Amino acid sequence: MTTRIVELRQGILKKNDELARGLRGRYTAAGVLVLNLVSSPGTGKTAFLERTLRELLARGFRAAALVGDLETDNDARRLAASGAPVRQINTHGICHLDAEMIDRHLAGWEGVELGGLDYLFIENVGNLVCPSSYDLGEKIRVALLSVTEGEDKPLKYPTLFNSADAAVITKIDIAEPCGFDRELALRNINEIRPGIRIFETSAKTGVGMGEWLAYLAEERSLRG
Amino acid sequence: MTTRIVELRQGILKKNDELARGLRGRYTAAGVLVLNLVSSPGTGKTAFLERTLRELLARGFRAAALVGDLETDNDARRLAASGAPVRQINTHGICHLDAEMIDRHLAGWEGVELGGLDYLFIENVGNLVCPSSYDLGEKIRVALLSVTEGEDKPLKYPTLFNSADAAVITKIDIAEPCGFDRELALRNINEIRPGIRIFETSAKTGVGMGEWLAYLAEERSLRG
Repeated sequence: MTTRIVELRQGILKKNDELARGLRGRYTAAGVLVLNLVSSPGTGKTAFLERTLRELLARGFRAAALVGDLETDNDARRLAASGAPVRQINTHGICHLDAEMIDRHLAGWEGVELGGLDYLFIENVGNLVCPSSYDLGEKIRVALLSVTEGEDKPLKYPTLFNSADAAVITKIDIAEPCGFDRELALRNINEIRPGIRIFETSAKTGVGMGEWLAYLAEERSLRG
Repeated sequence: MTTRIVELRQGILKKNDELARGLRGRYTAAGVLVLNLVSSPGTGKTAFLERTLRELLARGFRAAALVGDLETDNDARRLAASGAPVRQINTHGICHLDAEMIDRHLAGWEGVELGGLDYLFIENVGNLVCPSSYDLGEKIRVALLSVTEGEDKPLKYPTLFNSADAAVITKIDIAEPCGFDRELALRNINEIRPGIRIFETSAKTGVGMGEWLAYLAEERSLRG
């Protein structure tokens, strides 16, 4: 049975990669920078993304978000408070987003065209494992890690951190009561993905958000 | 392809359920209480379990742990500091433990016999989604949730909380800096799983551990 599972899994991933390639082409043609945010549940993806959307809109950028969740539209409602267009992708128990879901939700998104956006953020299902295998056509995969989670997460979930283009440490404002060992966390991230850009942020206080927004602007301009 | 995936998935789960049934019979025959600990990465499963093992050993109980991780044996090494026998299950990228892995690791566990244990803890892979579908033959499934994660986790991951026998809130010592809304968290847990036993704990300060240990003793005595 193992052989059949592996073959089927490879088939699924191959089909996903093909769809993702198509999406990537469409993103490039539309001139929109697409980011895929992956983390454990509770890392603070939604709070971080809400602040990011809010700050981008305040600077005159056009940004939108697709939000994956197993159930509920809590996150979509929170994000919509930023003023950006937000669309929920309810996976009904599936533990990751895939390219087909993105394709389908882009298609029927009233009032939103890829060509009318500067940035599209995809907030993945809270899961450090399964989303790592599914390319969504994004330019930048962002691995988020909070100061509450333990500094060894990059070592324990190497597939995600190894495939990430940027790492965001969240909840820096509570680093001290959590006993967060900053040096160790940075060392572990660098061990798995040497030289990766790392941002130390707090969506609550705004620390580190300036550097993050500068990075977004830079990456967008690099797209030419 | 979807039909084939669903059929294959049902086949895998059915096979797992059969194996789990066999394991459950063996646990009962041996008189060992088996618990399956499931949570997000970073909830503090390992710290909570280490303290549990330490306190059980100090009270003269015989307890051991199987620990699932995608990579590394960090958790097994941390748990072994408790003095209890600990065995690592390295899943090499698989996002959950299954009954076959448990069966295989029980079989070759030097110096440990089920009949010689009062408690066996299984620390699952850090993942709120996939482990929910895999019965490991445990008597008690424990869903852990930390004060850092957001009070809506039970609503967003209903499968886990709905299949859990006990809920443990961890890191109560940092509830205040995290702005944890206790009433809301309790309400959300109860909405998904009415009447479930809930423990509010800190592995750091020991708060709530007495009640948890009393529950373990009680559940064990109920086994007859």
